[in-house]
Amino acid sequence: MNREQRFERGLKVLQQIDPAAGQKIVDALADVSPELSHQVVAWVFGEMYARPGLPPRDRQLITLGILTALGGCETELHIHINAALNVGLTPAEITETLLHSAVYCGMPRALNGTFVAEKVFAERGLLPVVDAMA
Amino acid sequence: MNREQRFERGLKVLQQIDPAAGQKIVDALADVSPELSHQVVAWVFGEMYARPGLPPRDRQLITLGILTALGGCETELHIHINAALNVGLTPAEITETLLHSAVYCGMPRALNGTFVAEKVFAERGLLPVVDAMA
Amino acid sequence: MNREQRFERGLKVLQQIDPAAGQKIVDALADVSPELSHQVVAWVFGEMYARPGLPPRDRQLITLGILTALGGCETELHIHINAALNVGLTPAEITETLLHSAVYCGMPRALNGTFVAEKVFAERGLLPVVDAMA
Amino acid sequence: MNREQRFERGLKVLQQIDPAAGQKIVDALADVSPELSHQVVAWVFGEMYARPGLPPRDRQLITLGILTALGGCETELHIHINAALNVGLTPAEITETLLHSAVYCGMPRALNGTFVAEKVFAERGLLPVVDAMA
Amino acid sequence: MNREQRFERGLKVLQQIDPAAGQKIVDALADVSPELSHQVVAWVFGEMYARPGLPPRDRQLITLGILTALGGCETELHIHINAALNVGLTPAEITETLLHSAVYCGMPRALNGTFVAEKVFAERGLLPVVDAMA
Amino acid sequence: MNREQRFERGLKVLQQIDPAAGQKIVDALADVSPELSHQVVAWVFGEMYARPGLPPRDRQLITLGILTALGGCETELHIHINAALNVGLTPAEITETLLHSAVYCGMPRALNGTFVAEKVFAERGLLPVVDAMA
Repeated sequence: MNREQRFERGLKVLQQIDPAAGQKIVDALADVSPELSHQVVAWVFGEMYARPGLPPRDRQLITLGILTALGGCETELHIHINAALNVGLTPAEITETLLHSAVYCGMPRALNGTFVAEKVFAERGLLPVVDAMA
Repeated sequence: MNREQRFERGLKVLQQIDPAAGQKIVDALADVSPELSHQVVAWVFGEMYARPGLPPRDRQLITLGILTALGGCETELHIHINAALNVGLTPAEITETLLHSAVYCGMPRALNGTFVAEKVFAERGLLPVVDAMA
Repeated sequence: MNREQRFERGLKVLQQIDPAAGQKIVDALADVSPELSHQVVAWVFGEMYARPGLPPRDRQLITLGILTALGGCETELHIHINAALNVGLTPAEITETLLHSAVYCGMPRALNGTFVAEKVFAERGLLPVVDAMA
Repeated sequence: MNREQRFERGLKVLQQIDPAAGQKIVDALADVSPELSHQVVAWVFGEMYARPGLPPRDRQLITLGILTALGGCETELHIHINAALNVGLTPAEITETLLHSAVYCGMPRALNGTFVAEKVFAERGLLPVVDAMA
Repeated sequence: MNREQRFERGLKVLQQIDPAAGQKIVDALADVSPELSHQVVAWVFGEMYARPGLPPRDRQLITLGILTALGGCETELHIHINAALNVGLTPAEITETLLHSAVYCGMPRALNGTFVAEKVFAERGLLPVVDAMA
Repeated sequence: MNREQRFERGLKVLQQIDPAAGQKIVDALADVSPELSHQVVAWVFGEMYARPGLPPRDRQLITLGILTALGGCETELHIHINAALNVGLTPAEITETLLHSAVYCGMPRALNGTFVAEKVFAERGLLPVVDAMA
């Protein structure tokens, strides 16, 4: 499989998670770092996400945990909260994920992540979130 | 003490630090994660801040250190610089806290924190800050 | 529910994940910070893990993601890789989780986490791990 | 050398990297923390950058790596991507630096840094960047 | 004041916090980076700690908060928990500081810091710690 | 180029930096995560390091900056300080890199990195380091 074929494979995997994301990232980086968009598509999605070891829903749970813990990743959280919804996580599961993260990376990170989730849910008409225990 | 009583206790502790903050956080999270605002009020303030082991001024010094070190917590820093003023820290002590933090978490974090402090001080008419050594 | 009852509820939730962990953490902190072990048991497990919003397997995936991203949490990773096995994650799913984390927090964090997993798997006679794609 | 002389030395070193930066930081902090701007100029540039142990280009490579890894340092990255250009790094070397960082601190940090670079390059009319392998 | 005099001033400030620490750090770095030990003594203690803007006890509270939040700083935490005791913080105030930090940087960082505190307290015969609420 | 060829290319690039490292990492991960060692060799070295955009010396400067900033990466720092020496950085340039990092990520990270450097230099008979300004 050559460089272009690996990119195409990545694009296909990515399209199952977010149909528009592949073209968006290629466009966003076209002028400044086309190689970075190649690696995101060809390596991240074409190699890592393409592996059958974990289903897409699990991968988004892990990714939400990492992005929340890192901090300063609001743009990426916005993308991955959308991705999480696309692969079947419910709004209530996503807010529970962010609530759970407070235990391990503290309240400020959990709050920042939750405000990003609120924005995504508002854009998709998913507010209010009905709490799991309500 | 039941769930509601623990929330009420947290609200009282929080009101001594910032009279409006409790209602603000409940409102901000009402649609997306009411449980997160419950935990912030009932656990953070009702259990942790309610403990007599450290006075409020000490708790804000520690909190400012942590938030500065974490990075990406400008919203929370804004809240806690206000809280720090409310519990008796002077503007000069707050800028000294952020200057001190440069030693342990580097100049960029100290600068980011100081620019948040400038914003809070401007909002409260506390500029210019008179340096301790001037 | 009073303080002791909340501790007891936490202990029960924790025992379903790791039967010995509750007593271990109480013993480890008995001399230095009994309140910290109370909060870990009563708040983390009695309140946060006790919520039905996410099943135990999901909570460990998120936790592994966060602990890997934070770095410097080898002791906690050791505990949570054991917990992950206890709630049904397979060794191959755990190494896939750590491989996936390389995308979001880089190779050094993924490598450090994987070496902790190796230690846990060795202790439980689970090596070698059979890769999902082999 | 007294306090003022050390500040003057720092100003000179800083002017070789960015002619306007010294006055800008003094002005930005004048009301809130003049001591912090003194330390940035007198210590960071007057003592650390003034040392002959590494040439300016090397210091910017290291600095870009650190700021990318820390996250939440977009303002400082903006300054140091400008500084990197001023001391001779090409746009392609800077995007390669950020691409390389993806290996060690993950894709989100590399992406955030690259978008800051794009903004700086746009301001200086340096887009599109021609990739090293194109 | 020349380079040597600034080092001497730093040594004096440092000796009030920890009589043996100055010589220890000079010895530890003598072969690998004498300049780093010079900066720790002359800049950190001779300039930053020497400022009157915050008393030593406050500086240690902030420092403990930052070091706990950073993670991976067990060696420095060991030094600064000793320093905290030397400037008048009690063991109960130090464990309360670490308990408080759990709110803002999560349980794993709070636990790691508390185990370092336990080691220091054991070395100084200060166990068990009597909790503020007991 | 197929999967095995990409691995072989990575091995060649890696051998120019550290002749033994490729086999070491394959062996270390053989039982727990062969895919992770494949990605380190085939992707990190076969794709990222193989790019001509930055010479090996520059890549190690950036890497040392990132690993120092991340913290908790002592094992990786040990490997990359060796790599830095192998591609032509002198011990004095490496300690200057770590000294420089203190400005941006604080003294504790700079100290931790410097103690790793001391260990590597001792193993290779490179102590004492002669300071650039001595």
